[in-house]
Amino acid sequence: MRVYANEVAKHHNKKVLVQGWVQELRDFGGIRFILLKDRSGYTQITIPKKEVPASVYNAVENLTKESVIYVWGIAKKSEKAKVGSEIIPERIEIVSLAEAPTPIDTSGKIKTDLSKRLDHRFLDVRNKKSIALFTIRSKIFKACVEYFDSNGFININTPKITTIGVESGAALFEVKYFERVAYLAQSPQVYKQMFASSFEKVYEIAPVYRAEKSHTAQHLTEFIGIDFEQAFIESEQDVMDTVEGLIKHIIKKVKEECKNELKLWQRELSVPKKIPRITMREAKEILAEKGYKVPEEEDLNLETQKVLAEHFLNEHKSELVFIYYYPWAVRPFYHMKPEHDPSVTKSFDLLWNGIEVATGAQREHRYEILKKQAAEKGLDLDSMSYYAEIFRYGCPPHGGTGLGLDRLLEAMMLLPNIREGILLPRDPERLTP
Amino acid sequence: MRVYANEVAKHHNKKVLVQGWVQELRDFGGIRFILLKDRSGYTQITIPKKEVPASVYNAVENLTKESVIYVWGIAKKSEKAKVGSEIIPERIEIVSLAEAPTPIDTSGKIKTDLSKRLDHRFLDVRNKKSIALFTIRSKIFKACVEYFDSNGFININTPKITTIGVESGAALFEVKYFERVAYLAQSPQVYKQMFASSFEKVYEIAPVYRAEKSHTAQHLTEFIGIDFEQAFIESEQDVMDTVEGLIKHIIKKVKEECKNELKLWQRELSVPKKIPRITMREAKEILAEKGYKVPEEEDLNLETQKVLAEHFLNEHKSELVFIYYYPWAVRPFYHMKPEHDPSVTKSFDLLWNGIEVATGAQREHRYEILKKQAAEKGLDLDSMSYYAEIFRYGCPPHGGTGLGLDRLLEAMMLLPNIREGILLPRDPERLTP
Repeated sequence: MRVYANEVAKHHNKKVLVQGWVQELRDFGGIRFILLKDRSGYTQITIPKKEVPASVYNAVENLTKESVIYVWGIAKKSEKAKVGSEIIPERIEIVSLAEAPTPIDTSGKIKTDLSKRLDHRFLDVRNKKSIALFTIRSKIFKACVEYFDSNGFININTPKITTIGVESGAALFEVKYFERVAYLAQSPQVYKQMFASSFEKVYEIAPVYRAEKSHTAQHLTEFIGIDFEQAFIESEQDVMDTVEGLIKHIIKKVKEECKNELKLWQRELSVPKKIPRITMREAKEILAEKGYKVPEEEDLNLETQKVLAEHFLNEHKSELVFIYYYPWAVRPFYHMKPEHDPSVTKSFDLLWNGIEVATGAQREHRYEILKKQAAEKGLDLDSMSYYAEIFRYGCPPHGGTGLGLDRLLEAMMLLPNIREGILLPRDPERLTP
Repeated sequence: MRVYANEVAKHHNKKVLVQGWVQELRDFGGIRFILLKDRSGYTQITIPKKEVPASVYNAVENLTKESVIYVWGIAKKSEKAKVGSEIIPERIEIVSLAEAPTPIDTSGKIKTDLSKRLDHRFLDVRNKKSIALFTIRSKIFKACVEYFDSNGFININTPKITTIGVESGAALFEVKYFERVAYLAQSPQVYKQMFASSFEKVYEIAPVYRAEKSHTAQHLTEFIGIDFEQAFIESEQDVMDTVEGLIKHIIKKVKEECKNELKLWQRELSVPKKIPRITMREAKEILAEKGYKVPEEEDLNLETQKVLAEHFLNEHKSELVFIYYYPWAVRPFYHMKPEHDPSVTKSFDLLWNGIEVATGAQREHRYEILKKQAAEKGLDLDSMSYYAEIFRYGCPPHGGTGLGLDRLLEAMMLLPNIREGILLPRDPERLTP
C-alpha cells in the first residue's frame, strides 16, 4: 500500500512503499540521498552503501532528476533530514527514467521566464507550491457548484459553437462548421436569459472566447466563465446578493479546505461580513478626492480600480467592493435603466483587490423598452430573432452576472499575472501546447 | 414574500404572493380560472366576479397563455381544484404579456416535432417534466464534482482551442485564430495525461467537439465530456474502480435529491452493489450463444450492445456492465497492451442499458513502447512533440476515462434520443438557436 510523502512520519519503523518523482540526488561517496516528491510533498530516501543491497545502491547510479521511482523500505525518524523522516530502501524500481537535462529547471533555484515555463507546463507545475495553487483553483470551482446547487440554481450547458450573440462589438473567433460559418460564443448571455425564463435560476461554468488582441496581465482569449441568471428579482441588489453569497462561500470553503495551501502561499483570507456597495457616482467622488478625475460617462480603468481598492482596504478593511449604476454609455443595451436616472444602468461590477472579477445587471425584460434601448445603441432587436423571442412569450424580471474563474484566482491569490493561475493560457500569441 | 406554487398548500387562509407563467385560462362567465406555473409546479387562481375587485376580474380579460403574472391573494383549500388549493386574488399584475399564439404548444396536448421544439427550446422546457429532467442532469453534474473532489482529484481546465491532438482520424472543427489555423479539441486526452504527471489525479468537465456527420440518436458535434486521469495505478481495473465509484455516487445522489423528479418520470434507480466486469472475449461468447457472431478484431455496435444489456438485465439484474480488453485493432495507439496478450488492450467501455457511457484505459507510459505502438498504427510519436514530451521526463503509470454527461443522462433516464437531455444540441444540421 502506497504511503504519501507527507505521511511517512506516521509510519516510522514500518515498511513503506513511496512512489514519486526524483527532486534531488546527492552522492557523498558511500551514502546517496534522494529527495522524492509526490502530490503531497517531499520525503527523503537515504541509501548507505553498507546497509542496503548492492543492487539498490547501484540502481541509483544513473538515476536522473524527475525520474519516476517506487521505493520499498523502512521509514525512520531522522534529525538530519529536513523532512524529519528518511526511508532506508530495500528495493528501488525505476519506473520511468527522465532524460537529462529537463527543458526547464524544476528545482526552483533558476528563474525561468513565464513563456518557457508555459511551454513545458506539466514540468513547471510539478511542485508543491503550484499544486497548492491549482488545488485552490479546484476548490473555488467546487465551491461555486455547491453554492449554486444549494441555492436552487440548475446547471445548464449551452453551445459554444453558435451563430447568435448579443454583445455588440466583441470580436469573435470564426469556426468552419461543415459548409457553414459559425462563431465561438463570447458569453452564454443569450442562453442564460432564455433558460432563466424556463428554470428561473440557472448557472453555467464553461469556457468563453474573446478574439481580442489584448496584451495585459488580465486578459486571455479563452477563459472560464462562471455565469448565472435568476428570474423574479426586484432589482440589481438581488443579483448582488447572489454574488456576495457566492464570494463568501468560496472564501469560507478555501479557508476550510486549503489551510496548508494558503499557508504555503502566505496568504490570509477572511470571509467578509458585508461587501461594501457604492454607486459609480460615489466611486468617482472618492477618486476625485484623491486627484483622479473620471468623467461622468466614462468607465474606470485598472489604475483607478487599484486606487479604489487601496481606499477600501485602508478605510473599510475590505478587499472587495461592489460598484453599481454604471453609466449607460459603457454598458450593453440590455442592461436595465433605473427609473430615476436614465443616464445609468442597474448594473454593477465587483472589484477584488482592484481586479474586476464580476459584471452583472438587472436585464431589461420589457420588449418595447428593450427595442428602444437597442436602437439607442444603433442595434435592431428584431434582427436578433432568437434573442428577441425571449421577451415576446412571457419574460419575468431577471438579472445575472458573469464572473471569471481565472480572475477570481488571480485576485484571491494576488497573482502578478492571470496566466500564473491557468494551466495553459491562450492569448493572441500563445496557441500551444 | 413569494410563495412557490408547490407550497401554496402550506399557506391556506393566509395572504400569499405567487409569481409565474399562465399555463391555462378558463372563463365560465362570472368565474375565471388561471392555472399558474412556476419552477416548482402549478397552482390555481380562482377569480369569481362577485368576490374580487372589478379591476382584478377585468385585468384577466385579455390575458394570454405564457404571460408572466404576479398574484396577491388568499390561499384556500379547494376540493375542486386539481392541485388541492386555490388563490382568490386581491391584486394581479401582468408583468409580461405573451404574444398569442405561442410558436409551439406548451400545454402538452399537441405533439410537436423535436426540431421545432428545439427552435423554441426555452418555451419547450417551461414545464414540470422538463424542469425535472434538467434538474436531474444538474444533479449528475454536481455529483461528479463532489465525487472527484472528495477522492482527491484536482479540477483542471484545458484549452479547447488547440493545435495539438492525439486521437487519429477524428474529424476536427477548424478555428480561425487571428492569422493562424487552430482546431476545437476533440478531447482533453493530451492535457489530462500531461497533468496527471504533475498532480497525479485530475478531472475536467467541459465541452468536446467532433466534426463528424453522424446522424444517430447518440451522436452530437458538441457535448459535455467528463474526463479524468489518475497516476500510479496498477492496471485498468483501478481506473474501472474510479468509474464504478463515480456511477454509484451519481445514482445515490440522484435518488436522494431527485425523488419527485424520478417519480414524475416513473423511473426507479438502484445503486448497484457491484458492476459486472467481463472481457470482450466473454462478451462475444455470450453474443455467440444468442446467435450474434462478432469477429475477434471487431468492436460491438449499438445492436450487440443492446443484446448484452438485455442479457445482464435478465441474468444479473444489472443495467450496467463493464467490458474490458478491447481489441488492439479498434483502440488508439496509446492504450496499453497487457503482457499476456498483445492482440488486446487494457481498455474498457461501460455500457448502461446498452449505451456506451464511458471509455477508458490504462495508457502506455513507456516511451519506447509507445513509439512502437504509434508506428504500428502508422503514426510518428515524435511528430506529436508536446505529447511525446510527457513520456520523456518521468511519467508514472496512469490511466483514465472519458464519460459523456449527455450519454449518462440518456442512459439513466431511458431517453429515446440524446437530444432530449441537452438544451440546445449541435449536430451537422443544427447550429441554432
